[in-house]
Amino acid sequence: MDILFGGLDNNQKIMSQSIKLNMSRRIRRTPYTNLVEEHGVSDFTVVNHMLLPKGFKNSVENDYWHLSKNVQIWDVSCQRQVQISGPDAFKLVQKLTPRSIKKMETGKCFYIPILNENAGMINDPVLLKLDDDMYWISIADSDILLWAKGYAIGLNLDVNIQEPDVYPLAIQGPKAEELMISVFGKDIKKIKFFNYRVMDFMGTKQIIARSGYSKQDGFEIYFKTHDKLFDSIEMGEQLWKTLWKAGQKFNITPGCPNLIDRIEGGLMSYGNDFTSENNPLECNLEKYCQSDDNHDFIGREALKEIQKNGVKQKIRGIVFDGDPCSGIGQPLPVLSKDDKKIGQVTSGIYSPRVKKNIGLSMILKDYWSVGEEVKVLSSDNVLRKGMITSLPFPK
Amino acid sequence: MDILFGGLDNNQKIMSQSIKLNMSRRIRRTPYTNLVEEHGVSDFTVVNHMLLPKGFKNSVENDYWHLSKNVQIWDVSCQRQVQISGPDAFKLVQKLTPRSIKKMETGKCFYIPILNENAGMINDPVLLKLDDDMYWISIADSDILLWAKGYAIGLNLDVNIQEPDVYPLAIQGPKAEELMISVFGKDIKKIKFFNYRVMDFMGTKQIIARSGYSKQDGFEIYFKTHDKLFDSIEMGEQLWKTLWKAGQKFNITPGCPNLIDRIEGGLMSYGNDFTSENNPLECNLEKYCQSDDNHDFIGREALKEIQKNGVKQKIRGIVFDGDPCSGIGQPLPVLSKDDKKIGQVTSGIYSPRVKKNIGLSMILKDYWSVGEEVKVLSSDNVLRKGMITSLPFPK
Repeated sequence: MDILFGGLDNNQKIMSQSIKLNMSRRIRRTPYTNLVEEHGVSDFTVVNHMLLPKGFKNSVENDYWHLSKNVQIWDVSCQRQVQISGPDAFKLVQKLTPRSIKKMETGKCFYIPILNENAGMINDPVLLKLDDDMYWISIADSDILLWAKGYAIGLNLDVNIQEPDVYPLAIQGPKAEELMISVFGKDIKKIKFFNYRVMDFMGTKQIIARSGYSKQDGFEIYFKTHDKLFDSIEMGEQLWKTLWKAGQKFNITPGCPNLIDRIEGGLMSYGNDFTSENNPLECNLEKYCQSDDNHDFIGREALKEIQKNGVKQKIRGIVFDGDPCSGIGQPLPVLSKDDKKIGQVTSGIYSPRVKKNIGLSMILKDYWSVGEEVKVLSSDNVLRKGMITSLPFPK
Repeated sequence: MDILFGGLDNNQKIMSQSIKLNMSRRIRRTPYTNLVEEHGVSDFTVVNHMLLPKGFKNSVENDYWHLSKNVQIWDVSCQRQVQISGPDAFKLVQKLTPRSIKKMETGKCFYIPILNENAGMINDPVLLKLDDDMYWISIADSDILLWAKGYAIGLNLDVNIQEPDVYPLAIQGPKAEELMISVFGKDIKKIKFFNYRVMDFMGTKQIIARSGYSKQDGFEIYFKTHDKLFDSIEMGEQLWKTLWKAGQKFNITPGCPNLIDRIEGGLMSYGNDFTSENNPLECNLEKYCQSDDNHDFIGREALKEIQKNGVKQKIRGIVFDGDPCSGIGQPLPVLSKDDKKIGQVTSGIYSPRVKKNIGLSMILKDYWSVGEEVKVLSSDNVLRKGMITSLPFPK
């Protein structure tokens, strides 16, 4: 679908942004949803059939400034875990990604592209190695449980695949480390970026990784109920409240992935900035496609062909003029100086630090050089001056 | 998660129902979304990563009465098609379901359970046979594209699996046939329930089935852009507008699956009334699990075991007292007379015709008899008198 035909005008866009989300069991709540509602959540989205908060009482801009200076607590339970265990677990996980996991150690987190048979991206999760025969794939918005299970059944692999009751809770911001130390102790300092440690909470073992969907420092607690005395909600709320109380002296607020921070950091979103129509090279993921052990994986032949021929488009940063953009409901067309369609802005918002509208965009090869002058058709149907930039946006 | 622990009070429930849906490319728009917005859509939900309207200006009750007497046009594009074609198409589709498709003819629609290896339900789509080597699976809310593709790659089947640009548009209500005849001609009358015909619209061939997610008569147009001169939005809007114009004399309104009508009709919703934790016998789908050709399918061994041992719970109708229920955001616990937990209401709303709150519920064996007196813990945390009923609710 192309906005050039039957595109929305600005009124429609604003209207669509005030439409309610109809609630039902199918859109799953999390152990933290009651608290998120008490904190005054204003917007939700749906990821992996589960609620993800998208805004509270403050503006996105105020939340952005707060996140860059303090600490926030985020309900990111929608990052569901696909747990793969059993004798063939390593074999299966390795088949699912072009990134080699041969040398991956327990305690590590790997960002991995997952490809279909055409080398189209069907997810970009974080893989956690829990043991030699036990992995969690912490997924973006597509049913990788069904993908992995269908494939394993077809191949008759000896694995067990399930979605455990794990509800990730993120602590993000420059004061995240101090806050986490105050709750979990000094060993928090030992957790390096994209590593995790198993730590104690109320007598249960919890996986805590230094990671998160922001460009700030931060942690993700892969909260899991281990004790049947506690149900997920009761203990999840205890975890939230413990962090909340300890966070008071660090000026903690409830938050969520922040669009300004995410775009400035060049963090992509599956379904927004790329889809199964895109290959990992278009998404600048070359470094996860250079396997040194030459292993087999789904999409390997197609990817080789793409590597040989090169790609026609790539994700780039973009800045564009016009009224401050409050987020885009659908992609904005990008045109060349001579008005050819050369790509689209897939995520966009006004950055108060860059002092321009900024975005992630998929741009054709002849136009993807940094500094290229382009035009962006904004939501109010006006062509705005724009320029291609590198990613992430400079600090 | 159990409402008995940390349950919502009524204020929270009401609050959560007025929370906005954050829009982004990942939550896909349809060719009809612009028009749906012009018509004043008030609520959306998300199904298969796509917008599904859930309410317009009228109340659910007014829409219910309108639907029972007139005709409505519904954007059900979220019923995505998983297209399976190629030499092994029949083999693959048959592996995906316990229902035999051996005698299925081109032009037929089959409701089919799709099971995982444990005989858990992972979807309950409608299968369309387009040709001996070409099927569409019109899915509920889970990525069956990934399931089918993963399995086919694992088995190395010779099939092509994709999601075509098909955007179903439903015409529902007792005047649906008259309206459809006025647009597509008298051959509409020849389409029997759960059959389709290929008919002409603006020189393109479109699949029109007599089916739909209501207990009324109705049709689903599997609208597909065939002509590259038209993009999906432009031609989709033409289709909508043609039906809208012709519908004026039949008192047409924009609508959507109506919760009162759906529950009265005993129509289940995947993710709401059952999940992958439930098997097809619990969902009263025995008749689709009695294959006469004894074919092989995923989950067969597990299903045999369940058939041998019987099930512990089943979906039943339920009525319950209390203030008129406006829909439930999460399941309501059902208790026995002596206050044991015996099940849960998974979908519920007040029926102005039955003049009671009605629901679909999953109920333990010892309590599932029609007429059984039970209690329902309503959203405002009060135990209400209730009774088990048959399905569908009597007319």
